[in-house]
Amino acid sequence: MKIPSKYMEEAVEQLATLPSVGKRSALRLVIHLLNRKPEEIERFANAFLEMKKHVKYCKSCGNISDEVICEICTNPRRKHDEICVVEDVRDVIAIEETGSYQGIYHVLGGIISPMDGIGPSDLNISSLLGKVQNGEVKEVIFALSATMEGDTTNFFLYKKLQASGIIISTLSRGVSVGSELQYADGLTLGRSIINRTPFKIEGN
Amino acid sequence: MKIPSKYMEEAVEQLATLPSVGKRSALRLVIHLLNRKPEEIERFANAFLEMKKHVKYCKSCGNISDEVICEICTNPRRKHDEICVVEDVRDVIAIEETGSYQGIYHVLGGIISPMDGIGPSDLNISSLLGKVQNGEVKEVIFALSATMEGDTTNFFLYKKLQASGIIISTLSRGVSVGSELQYADGLTLGRSIINRTPFKIEGN
Repeated sequence: MKIPSKYMEEAVEQLATLPSVGKRSALRLVIHLLNRKPEEIERFANAFLEMKKHVKYCKSCGNISDEVICEICTNPRRKHDEICVVEDVRDVIAIEETGSYQGIYHVLGGIISPMDGIGPSDLNISSLLGKVQNGEVKEVIFALSATMEGDTTNFFLYKKLQASGIIISTLSRGVSVGSELQYADGLTLGRSIINRTPFKIEGN
Repeated sequence: MKIPSKYMEEAVEQLATLPSVGKRSALRLVIHLLNRKPEEIERFANAFLEMKKHVKYCKSCGNISDEVICEICTNPRRKHDEICVVEDVRDVIAIEETGSYQGIYHVLGGIISPMDGIGPSDLNISSLLGKVQNGEVKEVIFALSATMEGDTTNFFLYKKLQASGIIISTLSRGVSVGSELQYADGLTLGRSIINRTPFKIEGN
């Protein structure tokens, strides 16, 4: 693709460095940007510079934050002895959106994936073990993807935490709320029968 | 979606102003950016600022260019009496990639679309008419989308150029090269029978 301006080409190339943005869609986006006012482009570009300058990883849980400690870790109304272990900040956002969790988080920054060369030492694990050893924690909840990498990471963490005597739990797996049985995959359906729960009228 | 950093939120919002980028994919891209080195972010952000500062529209044809006149218009080996009328720079790039065209271009910067409030006066039309009136042009080729808006624009330009006596042509419509007949849409197939061309052995 021969772009008739080297400045536009650089913009297209930079945008195409983002995952799942191809050169053709990058070109479409760049043409859209070119038609904006200079001050809008400045705001666009500055957003990334400011983000890189100011966004930190929370010293306590590894979540992103504008402060040294994130607003979930500093919130006195959260249960600080309940830690939900997640892969990255998107999982924190997703769980926070449910409004169903009152504890704090621990963001690993990835999951163990030998295929991608990511081992336990690349993840934010030691500070989790530290918190548990200090006796600050009653329960650790594994909220990782239901993939082989997720299972491997769960297993690794379980082995490390097992001796501490704290409660170790994981998200329940089962048929999605609102979905029809016949469309559930067999593995999920099988697990949901084995792990069946006492019937309860919602709201009681 | 509650993002735990106002700087990251601004970056997500700015990225989500781009067409067909939703907030969730913007977040994914921004997390990816956050993990890059500061100098990489600087290069990323600068690309857009530099582009806005330096990229111009060619004074002659409306194509994008780093100079006042674009490199196609200044190329003495192009046929300057053959003008291909296109909607935007992406069409120039696509036609240039075919290597099948030796003339110059005229970029309208859009097409007539009453639904979007775009009329002839919003487009780069008068300079095209000027070139034709000056007698510089032998042929004008309409290369607009095969949509109602494209047809409307073709019709408008045809009415304006008709009296000049120059050749006015348009891209041939027909069955795609390499495609199977049974999957061609009826309208295209019908047109391709009506506008059938003499059989020729390729390369002869």
